[in-house]
Amino acid sequence: MSYGLLKEKRGIIFGALDENSIAWKTAERVHEEGASFVLTNAPIAMRMGTINQLAEKTGSTIIPADATSLEDLEHLVNESVKVLGGKIDFVLHSIGMSVNVRKGRAYTDQKYDWTAKGWDVSAGSFHKVMQVLYKQDAMREWGSIVALSYMAAQRVFPDYNDMADNKAFLESIARSFGYFFGRDKNVRVNTISQSPTPTTAGKGVKGFDGFISYAEKMSPLGNASALDCANYTVSLFSDLTRKVTLQNLFHDGGFSNMGVSDAVMQVFEEE
Amino acid sequence: MSYGLLKEKRGIIFGALDENSIAWKTAERVHEEGASFVLTNAPIAMRMGTINQLAEKTGSTIIPADATSLEDLEHLVNESVKVLGGKIDFVLHSIGMSVNVRKGRAYTDQKYDWTAKGWDVSAGSFHKVMQVLYKQDAMREWGSIVALSYMAAQRVFPDYNDMADNKAFLESIARSFGYFFGRDKNVRVNTISQSPTPTTAGKGVKGFDGFISYAEKMSPLGNASALDCANYTVSLFSDLTRKVTLQNLFHDGGFSNMGVSDAVMQVFEEE
Amino acid sequence: MSYGLLKEKRGIIFGALDENSIAWKTAERVHEEGASFVLTNAPIAMRMGTINQLAEKTGSTIIPADATSLEDLEHLVNESVKVLGGKIDFVLHSIGMSVNVRKGRAYTDQKYDWTAKGWDVSAGSFHKVMQVLYKQDAMREWGSIVALSYMAAQRVFPDYNDMADNKAFLESIARSFGYFFGRDKNVRVNTISQSPTPTTAGKGVKGFDGFISYAEKMSPLGNASALDCANYTVSLFSDLTRKVTLQNLFHDGGFSNMGVSDAVMQVFEEE
Amino acid sequence: MSYGLLKEKRGIIFGALDENSIAWKTAERVHEEGASFVLTNAPIAMRMGTINQLAEKTGSTIIPADATSLEDLEHLVNESVKVLGGKIDFVLHSIGMSVNVRKGRAYTDQKYDWTAKGWDVSAGSFHKVMQVLYKQDAMREWGSIVALSYMAAQRVFPDYNDMADNKAFLESIARSFGYFFGRDKNVRVNTISQSPTPTTAGKGVKGFDGFISYAEKMSPLGNASALDCANYTVSLFSDLTRKVTLQNLFHDGGFSNMGVSDAVMQVFEEE
Repeated sequence: MSYGLLKEKRGIIFGALDENSIAWKTAERVHEEGASFVLTNAPIAMRMGTINQLAEKTGSTIIPADATSLEDLEHLVNESVKVLGGKIDFVLHSIGMSVNVRKGRAYTDQKYDWTAKGWDVSAGSFHKVMQVLYKQDAMREWGSIVALSYMAAQRVFPDYNDMADNKAFLESIARSFGYFFGRDKNVRVNTISQSPTPTTAGKGVKGFDGFISYAEKMSPLGNASALDCANYTVSLFSDLTRKVTLQNLFHDGGFSNMGVSDAVMQVFEEE
Repeated sequence: MSYGLLKEKRGIIFGALDENSIAWKTAERVHEEGASFVLTNAPIAMRMGTINQLAEKTGSTIIPADATSLEDLEHLVNESVKVLGGKIDFVLHSIGMSVNVRKGRAYTDQKYDWTAKGWDVSAGSFHKVMQVLYKQDAMREWGSIVALSYMAAQRVFPDYNDMADNKAFLESIARSFGYFFGRDKNVRVNTISQSPTPTTAGKGVKGFDGFISYAEKMSPLGNASALDCANYTVSLFSDLTRKVTLQNLFHDGGFSNMGVSDAVMQVFEEE
Repeated sequence: MSYGLLKEKRGIIFGALDENSIAWKTAERVHEEGASFVLTNAPIAMRMGTINQLAEKTGSTIIPADATSLEDLEHLVNESVKVLGGKIDFVLHSIGMSVNVRKGRAYTDQKYDWTAKGWDVSAGSFHKVMQVLYKQDAMREWGSIVALSYMAAQRVFPDYNDMADNKAFLESIARSFGYFFGRDKNVRVNTISQSPTPTTAGKGVKGFDGFISYAEKMSPLGNASALDCANYTVSLFSDLTRKVTLQNLFHDGGFSNMGVSDAVMQVFEEE
Repeated sequence: MSYGLLKEKRGIIFGALDENSIAWKTAERVHEEGASFVLTNAPIAMRMGTINQLAEKTGSTIIPADATSLEDLEHLVNESVKVLGGKIDFVLHSIGMSVNVRKGRAYTDQKYDWTAKGWDVSAGSFHKVMQVLYKQDAMREWGSIVALSYMAAQRVFPDYNDMADNKAFLESIARSFGYFFGRDKNVRVNTISQSPTPTTAGKGVKGFDGFISYAEKMSPLGNASALDCANYTVSLFSDLTRKVTLQNLFHDGGFSNMGVSDAVMQVFEEE
């Protein structure tokens, strides 16, 4: 597909680790739709991943930044505007990490230094990114900011651990900051609540495989893939969705509004 | 704008009364994006409006149908598939009418025959349209069905009267039927919860002008216009949103997630 | 338990069919808490059930009424005020019936006369009850009106069929009428969204047994029983909850906010 | 009112600063209903307030604790079980503070050290309290934990600043921890989303007076007072609500489900 939906638009994309990343697919699709953009990631993530290939493929510049560091973000935004030749039309925030999850600590046995770290990386970073963009007046009018979230912000998925609370905070930031960005700059801010997706990060969550097959059976259209999400994100960056703001948008094949599906009940009754 | 997003797609559009209609703007935009479609409306509405001009402008066929009549709907779907040369990719349901509102009956003093009539026209018709499409297997895989709704389905707007309850029913139908349409045909079903819009129908609601200015002040991006809604609908008919289903999507400049805005509080404090 | 929470309060209880009914348990508990009340049901339901025993046990008067008939409801409310010796403090609406479900019609193959009948009985009746109470000014200040609902109003449970849409309409009526009842009479109106409950009516839904065990495994506290619901309803009729209104209150052991539980995933992974 | 609803129940109440506090009113009501409890607050808050009077009046012990300190909380829970003579039946968490609000920093110009501090005090503390209770197995079966929240967790109230995001995090903790507390200990966890209330803390929010009168006009039953909230909390601590868990319960005279009221529109139209 390619429609030229993002011609002459400029953006910043956070969080493309490797080709399984939603941010990676989004970068590819956004490129096909005619946009130019800067890729960014934390220095550590850049060493682990293959972001250089993506930059080459899409003709993008990479500017490393720790998204919890105001200094890094100020540099990133400044440089992006210079490199791209003007204000920013779209931003994708695809960043999340829980130390408690990584280290296998139960939700009921958190180490609070780790909790604070995960909160800062996964949610606080979204506020910082927007605060820097807002203060530098770096967003073009009718621009679009999107962060990736997950339904654990509304409902309990036991293995998602403290990331659930971080996503709730992230979605709240989208509303709170979205008000000021809308009122003052005509910029929209939304989150996409995406199906469980087999990214390199997603696979780290305990019991991920079983869960992804449960979600597949629960969703009338099946799980949304990383590419599906990239397409949806393109629509939210485009001029077709200018009045959508402060929303958390479920992109999940219908999972979020299911109580139970026939397919799930069938597994259950065989038991 | 024109991106070719709907090239080779076929559709049915309900409810284009005159050039203020959301359905009218949608027909124009869908035409620009390359789709072909059938226009339909109730015979009465056709006499009151100017749908012929729209048909001419967009090269569309008009097939009149009372959306509460199964017979009419069966004929409509049958003929549409013939006229358009294949199965249907998209449907817009933009139909709503309350006799209690029209006749000025208070919500607490309903005439129940009128309540039943409004329910059948505004909500029941959506089920009937989908049941006919489903039984005739007339939707193409990955098709998209959209109905227009309003936030009164979730929150109280006193003058919206029994249309609030009808919209709640309509949104429930979208979820309930969306499950079966997703599971069996890979078709998505969603509702758009649109800003108050000065259509010919909308203006009929008591206190509409005051309310529209209240909504404008409450929404960080201002109210979404009929054209904005048409653009958003295009995105939902396109292949960019294939995994979005069972959702009620707020398209309202942010109103739905506002508690209060500075602009509204200012009016309040001047008082 | 008995705390005297409803001393000197007067009420009307709809829908006590037999001892499995939630309305039956509520009548018993409300009696224990010191209230007096009128029992009512449709003449047909009265012949099928055993409401006389309940009336005897609780010292209540029975006044039959078809809840879709304004005439019957006017008589009921008039007589209740007389029999009880004053205005009404609380009302329980526990009425629901789908002809499509009873006759085994699929959601995608509805007979619309039956749909209309089920809508009128299950949802319309709630509006009619409140309209009669409101017009007769029969509710005492700070009174409480409760209707029973089910989560299918928000999320898809395929076998719940058109009752899902009816419950969405019912919950909307609670909000819409609740506004006017609150503003004009200081009366609160809420719905309880109850766990699947093995009442005589509930058991009629296809696949009910499998589903109830699924819900049990999904809910951190297990399903709420009819007696649990009666207790919760007592709290909503009491003076402890005077400022709770326009709400749909989930009473379900936590099901409504679960994405998935460990217990459900375990069944799934054994598969 | 006094019904003996909490006879022989033991609890811990956080956050009673002075007689305007919701926690203060709750302590008084809980005492009237027959419970015994420990009062606790941060040492600083204790010096500013008048908690000694409350302890005297209700025959309670005061155990100071900084709710962000695990050590303090462990001591508090240990001692409470000893002083009260058994496991805990109920806990009220009424703690919130934003340094950004206090120091007058705009939401778009946060000082992130202050953001982190406010997050830890207002939301993190709730997790810590529950983790300590859970690990010490200090809650009695069918106990009830309640935290106070505000609708800014769902919708934008510009002056509420970063407290909005903190409340979203708090409500998510209630769901996440509520799952484990329900599953493992049959304990319920809920938040009450209370009307704006003129407590000593509440009054500190910019524009509070104007806002409280707006909320009064928007709510069909008017704002819920601190005493109303205490009554509602009593119902949630009682055995009448054993199966209510993982919920955020709006206690606000109906505000949360209002789009607009006649009273608000009237002010608007006079303008």
